[in-house]
Amino acid sequence: MRLADSFRSERFGAVRIHELQRVIELDSGAQADAGRPALEAGSRIVPPDALRAVETQLVIVVPCMNESRTVVEGVLSGIPHDCLLVLVSNSDRHPVDRYEIEAQTVEQFCRLAGRPAITVHQRDPGLAAAFKAAGMEELIDDAGLVRAGKGEAMLIGMALAAMTGRRYVGYVDADNYVPGAVHEYCKAYAAGLFLAGSPYSMVRISWHSKPKLRDGRLFFSRRGRSSEVTNEWLNRFLAEYSGFGTEVIATGNAGEHAMSLDLGLKLRLAGGFAVEPFEYVDLFEQFGGVLDSAHPDVMNSSVPVVQIETRNPHFHDNKGEEHVQGMRMQALNVIYHSPVTLPALRAAIAEFLVAQGALLPGQEPPRERIYPPVGELDLDLLFDGLDAEALSFRRFDGRAAAGLPPAPPIDRGTIPRAAA
Amino acid sequence: MRLADSFRSERFGAVRIHELQRVIELDSGAQADAGRPALEAGSRIVPPDALRAVETQLVIVVPCMNESRTVVEGVLSGIPHDCLLVLVSNSDRHPVDRYEIEAQTVEQFCRLAGRPAITVHQRDPGLAAAFKAAGMEELIDDAGLVRAGKGEAMLIGMALAAMTGRRYVGYVDADNYVPGAVHEYCKAYAAGLFLAGSPYSMVRISWHSKPKLRDGRLFFSRRGRSSEVTNEWLNRFLAEYSGFGTEVIATGNAGEHAMSLDLGLKLRLAGGFAVEPFEYVDLFEQFGGVLDSAHPDVMNSSVPVVQIETRNPHFHDNKGEEHVQGMRMQALNVIYHSPVTLPALRAAIAEFLVAQGALLPGQEPPRERIYPPVGELDLDLLFDGLDAEALSFRRFDGRAAAGLPPAPPIDRGTIPRAAA
Repeated sequence: MRLADSFRSERFGAVRIHELQRVIELDSGAQADAGRPALEAGSRIVPPDALRAVETQLVIVVPCMNESRTVVEGVLSGIPHDCLLVLVSNSDRHPVDRYEIEAQTVEQFCRLAGRPAITVHQRDPGLAAAFKAAGMEELIDDAGLVRAGKGEAMLIGMALAAMTGRRYVGYVDADNYVPGAVHEYCKAYAAGLFLAGSPYSMVRISWHSKPKLRDGRLFFSRRGRSSEVTNEWLNRFLAEYSGFGTEVIATGNAGEHAMSLDLGLKLRLAGGFAVEPFEYVDLFEQFGGVLDSAHPDVMNSSVPVVQIETRNPHFHDNKGEEHVQGMRMQALNVIYHSPVTLPALRAAIAEFLVAQGALLPGQEPPRERIYPPVGELDLDLLFDGLDAEALSFRRFDGRAAAGLPPAPPIDRGTIPRAAA
Repeated sequence: MRLADSFRSERFGAVRIHELQRVIELDSGAQADAGRPALEAGSRIVPPDALRAVETQLVIVVPCMNESRTVVEGVLSGIPHDCLLVLVSNSDRHPVDRYEIEAQTVEQFCRLAGRPAITVHQRDPGLAAAFKAAGMEELIDDAGLVRAGKGEAMLIGMALAAMTGRRYVGYVDADNYVPGAVHEYCKAYAAGLFLAGSPYSMVRISWHSKPKLRDGRLFFSRRGRSSEVTNEWLNRFLAEYSGFGTEVIATGNAGEHAMSLDLGLKLRLAGGFAVEPFEYVDLFEQFGGVLDSAHPDVMNSSVPVVQIETRNPHFHDNKGEEHVQGMRMQALNVIYHSPVTLPALRAAIAEFLVAQGALLPGQEPPRERIYPPVGELDLDLLFDGLDAEALSFRRFDGRAAAGLPPAPPIDRGTIPRAAA
């Protein structure tokens, strides 16, 4: 993969946010292997071997809710073979058990492709029990189940990723009609994680365009309705500190993103759709140098955030205006309530929300749910609980089905526990 | 890339048409390199090195007509680095010179990506003069220019491909909104050409689905309007000979296809939109064993046609009903007029065309224009003509621009002349 080089970045404490880098070539050939310079004329090649080395350490988590079999199968086909698949479903189980259909789709794909996968249903009582035993009661709702939000699905996925002993986790939404876009996201994760050159790194995707229906024809929109607002306020957050306006953040709402587990296990994830923008906020809180960090090792290193503009259109189901409005508000809520947000910005956010009719004058924006870091979980107990009680917890080994040496068992004890 | 295995094929003389093979994984990992069986449980892996070996010998011809800069750039970004780019444009040159814009887009891309490319305009008087000098006056219209059809653009592309000394040529239409689909087509070409295992091989793509607007929402159609008819009649062609009904041909109108130049230089291409279905017809004529073949070497080998169903939706501009109707008729015209089409089928085609209102009873379908094989051209004279007279003929060397050793010069004398 060849990326445009990133010449500028913004620093906030140990966090270094690189400006958006375009993908120039999806496949840049093998020539870097042949002693070719990796950096040339404003672009940077990540050769196949380097991509592969990351992919063999990369878990791809697919949060899934009521997608059709065809769409799910397409997404799976786009995920490079060497990545490990984890599907976290919050699909309906009645009147039809859509999770069973999804699990069958994954199993069939794994058998054909000779690869392993893990699936689990977010609302499985056994999963809730396992998380409770592992020390994260916050995740459980009044019905005794793991809460239904997207952030919660991502948290489950990260915990499963941590169990596998791999080094990286990335997310790909299941509602993607273009397998080639999924493929590009995964390659961009691998390229970005390779280029980041730090054990604590994150890659966030900005899609090239989003096809929308407008007056009966297709229009390729460059910007998401929610992203513009989220990015603007995250950039204003930085500008309040630096005194210089910036547009460096282009991926505030990026559903497609990946990170090293060394970083991910330290992050606190937010619930629902606050999860993606809150990753930036939590980076600022934990590694921004404003508050004392619980991780001096990270502060002595750096936390690069690589942002990549992919080539493919992001072509997915239209979730409607309500969904977008909700995402926007949740992003602003988490910025508003962050202890590192400066008072002037907080006031401006409240004013904006009032002007939008989302808040009454004098009210405070609601607080979003923030979970403790996944690294604080007792993963041994989590695994034992899943194994014993979660009926939806499946581990497919398509390699064994294809007569190959089985995949390494997905159990505990393979990953070094994150420093508490 | 991992493909479903093809278990069945239909033979017609030396031509062996393999049933459609699905793409299972866009990227099947590097594991086949590590002593892994290439065939397992109904699927077949083509490892990265094998793909790369074909790509370094593959010329990708992009026929282009009035596409936007963004779309062209996206298509280029999806073509693997090791393939050589050839853009054959039939875009308007007045009031705006759209060819100049395209050539600039290609040049900029090549500079960024450090790769070479060739571009030419189909209606350049110098191109016509060069083809005339090289021995293909049939290509020239009354205005003294190369005819404006798609088949003619593909013929130009094949001649340029032959000049480069590479072994394979593939076609990718410029009006594709999904760079990831372009990428998949090229990988499928490489995989299919690798698997075909004959010097005379062809790979044809059937896209997974085609998004269409229907009642204000998107519908993923599985079949093209024109393809169904073309495929049905090509299959009936085979069935008339064998006595067994078949559905083996699924790619009669495939715009996306590739072949070895050893085969391509022997094929006669048709003009306009007859070009793609006529490739099948010409295979049947030349290598079907019904007529004497001018190429006993090919008859003693085999001519595999590999058909691949890609994963990505084929998402392009809607060219309208007239275009589709035209494609359908041209396909039937070439089947009708082939000397190897059996009389019963010929009668059935005429009947169908009359029922469709495309023909009056008793009329004959029109004949499409059929050109002599590109292998009969004098490529030395063609090159000299282009070099001296075709003002639109550009050879970009992005490698040199990036400070790399320049690409091998695109001139004559590198490819063995096809046997006459």
